[in-house]
Formats: sequence, structure tokens, C-alpha cells
Amino acid sequence: MDKHIRHIKQLARDISEVENGGPGAEILLDKAWKSGKFAFRIGVTGPPGAGKSTLVNWLAASFSDNGKKTAVISVDPSSPFTGGAILGDRIRMNTLSGRDNVYIRSMASRGSLGGLSMKTHDVCDILDGYGFDIILIETVGVGQIELDIAQAADVTLTVLVPESGDDIQAMKAGIMEISDIFIVNKSDRHGVEAMVTHLRSLIALRKKYSTLPWEQPVIRTIATSGKGVDAVLTALDKYRKMLENQQAWHSIRGERMKNKVFQIVNETLSAHFWTPEKRKMLREELQSASAAQQSPFRIAEKLLTSLRKA
Amino acid sequence: MDKHIRHIKQLARDISEVENGGPGAEILLDKAWKSGKFAFRIGVTGPPGAGKSTLVNWLAASFSDNGKKTAVISVDPSSPFTGGAILGDRIRMNTLSGRDNVYIRSMASRGSLGGLSMKTHDVCDILDGYGFDIILIETVGVGQIELDIAQAADVTLTVLVPESGDDIQAMKAGIMEISDIFIVNKSDRHGVEAMVTHLRSLIALRKKYSTLPWEQPVIRTIATSGKGVDAVLTALDKYRKMLENQQAWHSIRGERMKNKVFQIVNETLSAHFWTPEKRKMLREELQSASAAQQSPFRIAEKLLTSLRKA
Repeated sequence: MDKHIRHIKQLARDISEVENGGPGAEILLDKAWKSGKFAFRIGVTGPPGAGKSTLVNWLAASFSDNGKKTAVISVDPSSPFTGGAILGDRIRMNTLSGRDNVYIRSMASRGSLGGLSMKTHDVCDILDGYGFDIILIETVGVGQIELDIAQAADVTLTVLVPESGDDIQAMKAGIMEISDIFIVNKSDRHGVEAMVTHLRSLIALRKKYSTLPWEQPVIRTIATSGKGVDAVLTALDKYRKMLENQQAWHSIRGERMKNKVFQIVNETLSAHFWTPEKRKMLREELQSASAAQQSPFRIAEKLLTSLRKA
Repeated sequence: MDKHIRHIKQLARDISEVENGGPGAEILLDKAWKSGKFAFRIGVTGPPGAGKSTLVNWLAASFSDNGKKTAVISVDPSSPFTGGAILGDRIRMNTLSGRDNVYIRSMASRGSLGGLSMKTHDVCDILDGYGFDIILIETVGVGQIELDIAQAADVTLTVLVPESGDDIQAMKAGIMEISDIFIVNKSDRHGVEAMVTHLRSLIALRKKYSTLPWEQPVIRTIATSGKGVDAVLTALDKYRKMLENQQAWHSIRGERMKNKVFQIVNETLSAHFWTPEKRKMLREELQSASAAQQSPFRIAEKLLTSLRKA
């Protein structure tokens, strides 16, 4: 087995460990944070069928051609029960297969929402530790979970199609605030002009969507033929340089570290509290509670009091 | 000011207090849990434009006509930034206005996802305390946040239209698992037969979607004219009786109480930990961390060690 394959297999195992919250997760993440470079994290969001996967393929291939170590994470928050990712991984594999510097991974929600959002951060951190230059994070849809996951990124692309009027209408606020770059894909279709004009007027209305000196561009693409992909790459590069110039790069990482500290502390406090004895107490209280009209606040108080006594 | 109006104004204030997490929230929720009856919580989900609001209007009006104290909560997780609800409340108000036993409230996400899901639970608990018989919880879209919120309900209706094929395709897993009753609205449109057949085949494929003895019905409605609403009401009644017969009613409330205890305990632990001194320590650590390649695990450890010493 050659060295590259061993390396990739180790990466896959590490990500699984972190995804499953196994005993080694903390050690892996700790190591990743300390050794990590600072990959450019690119979020890609938009309604189903807009062509996100095809566009991500092109972007990944371009980065790869330029010698960048590139990871693609497909996050699928829409199937919490089966755990199966519905994104077109097989199609993607064909385009990107045979490239030593491209790594592809699907993530699906297995439980809580917040969980998926946090795991996405953790997986990005592991990839950082492995020295990736680029991490593309693709999500399905434009609901709030997607916005949360997009916030794991340094820059967010929103892919729309000429027919996306309704989506914009429904999601206007969220889309306008979270998107740094707009892409109108399938721009050979009818209605593209109206869509671009509509987007531009929304952008003009908002003016300052962030404290950063950046005006959200609207780029037309035809992802199936690769048309417009260069313009997207140029916009990404421009955005990255702006972040660097504004020292925003630095504060993004600081903010991420702070959130991670909060998460670790709160999880540790909870884990220390919920001993087998406490869980037993809770079960007993719930049984007696179901008879009377009890309140969860009283039960919590009892449990917390027993802590203070101990 | 008459008694009813005072009562409703007090309810609105109580809900706001709980939504904003004000100092009185705990007392109000504590009281609500102790005095609460057990309202039937009906979740209504489905893609935008499927006619959820119109259907909810009909259901609310029918319950109200039957003397049931009915609440409608519109949850809008798609605009996390503006906090503005995009649902058609004005339209609804006209249909339901002048009814003393109907209360309507919009909720929008102001921050984290998990936050909205929890607040929805809390608002339902307050309504329980006010003696409501029926709580209709309407959400926009079928992403995972909507599934989470739907889980706050005792029963979940999924409203689709003949054109929803793509939505089902994208969301299949989630929809099939979470829905207790399917509604194909706008059933005078082309494609309704194909849609109903498609849904039935998916249901048959899954067979046991839950441990409860319940086969998910597919009901055709034309919400604009009220056609099929009676069938929905009958299905809801049947579902409720099934829950009662299976003692599931009881365990649903127990499960909710348990989750609430966990939440209260974990929030209390966190609040006690994060004193102003700890926050100062964190800020200092983050500043020194940004120079070196530090890890959030080390910072968390330092903070937690200082706790043990204290």
C-alpha cells in the first residue's frame, strides 16, 4: 500500500472518530488545532437542483490543478433519520477521481441539528490539521441549518438559478446576509436577466451587509460547461485578499477558538454532573412526577442541590 | 377593559417573557408545568406555498367552533437575521378574528437554531398552563429545523401539493419518518393521482415507521374551499385516541419533562461557571493563543482547573 493511500485512510479514520465523538476525538482535535495551517473554508449553499455539486466539482478541479490540497465536504441536514447523504457523490467521484490532492467526504445528520453544525466545524479543523489549503463545504437547501453551517466558512457562495425567485422571496433575509458571492447558474435559461437585476437591487437596498469593505458580486455561470467558473475563482481570491488586508482572517480564527472553548467547557461540566447516581435520581423523580403535576424546574433544583451538598 | 382582553394581554406578555428568556421566565414555566392540562399539539409542516396557513386556518376555525380553546403558533426559522415572520398572519387574522377562543402567535428565530426549537417547546408549555385544548404549530419548509420543531408536537401533518415530487425526493427520509398524516393539498390540480400513489408506495415500503399501531393516511384537500378538512379532523381524532389507548400520551409528557430537566441543569451549570473572572481569563488566553498555535482544549483545561482549585 503506498504512502498516499495510507495517509488518506488515516484521515478518513480520524474524521470518523471525530464524527462519532469517539474517545480519541479530543486528542485528534487538539493536535489538529496546534499543527493546523489555515485552510480557506468556502461554503456553498442554495436550493436543491441549482447545480451546487457541479459547480463545486469545477472549483475543486481548478484548485487541484493549481496544486492546492483540496477537500470537499457535503453536508446533508435533510435526512436526519437514515443518515444517508443524498448528494450526487458518485457523479462527483468520476470527475475528481484520480487526483491525489482532492479528498471528498459526505456528512449526514444523525441526531440533533446543533450537533451537525458542530461536527462540521470539527471536521474542518481536522482537515486544517492535515494541511489542506481549500475546504469546500456544500450544503443542501437554504434553511437555517444551512446558514449555520455556512457560518463555519470564511466565505459563502450562494448558487441560484433563474427560476429561484420564490426561494429568494422566502429566504430573502437569510440569503442576503449570509452570502458573500452570488452565483446565478444555468444562466443560458430564460429569466436570467430578471434574476440578476432582482439580486442587484436587493444588494443595493441593503448596502452595508457587513462591516467588511465588500460588495457582493453577482456572477453568471453555466456549471455544466464550466462557463463562469473562472469569474467565481477570481471573486474568491479577491475576497480572501480582502480578509487578509482587514486582519479579519485573524479574528475569524479567534472567534472559532472561543466558541470551541465554550463548547468543551459546557460539555465537560455536563458530563461531570450526570453521574450514574444523578441519572438514577432523575429517573425516580420522573416516575413520581408523572403521578402529580410536577415541574421540571423542581426536579432540576433537587438534582442541583444534591450537587452542592456533595 | 374586559376580562378576556386582560387575559389575552397577560398571555402575550408571558409568552414574550419566555421567548426573551427574561427573569420571570422560570417562574412562569414552573407554574405552567404544574397547572398545565395536556393540550393536543399538532405540528404542520411542508414546503412553502403548499397551503399550510390556509389549512391551519380551517383546522383552527373547526376546533374553535367545537368549543376548543385553540392556539396557532407560526414558527419561521428561515429568517434568522431580521427576526421577521414571513407567514401570512394578516390573512389569517381576518378568518379567525372575533373568536374569543383562538390565540395566534408568530415566532421567528433570533439566534441559534437549537434556541428556536427550545423556545417553541416553552411557548407550548405556557399555552398548556393557560388551559388551551389545541396547539397548532406551523413551520415553513421541510428542512431539519422544521423536523425538530415538528417533534415538539404530538402528531405531525405534512402538507404537500401535486407538484411536490422534488421536495419528497430531496427530503424523503425525513418526511416519511416524521409525518403521521399526509395531506395532498390543491388536489384539483393535475398530477394528484400520481402524487397520492407515490406517497402510498413510499408508506408501504417503510411499513413500520414507528412502534405505534398507525398507518399513515394520505388525505386530499382543497384548502381554499375547505374540501377534505373534515377528513383531516377525523384522522387527527383517530390518532389522538390511538395515543391514549397506547398510553403513549403519558410517555410523551415524561420524555418532554426529562429533556427540560437536562436543559435547565446544563444551563445552570454553565451560568455558574462563566463568572466575570472566568470570562476575563478566557479573553486573556485567547489573546495569547492567537500568537502561538494554541488549542481550545488547553484553554478549556486551564479554565476548568481553576474551577477545581477554587
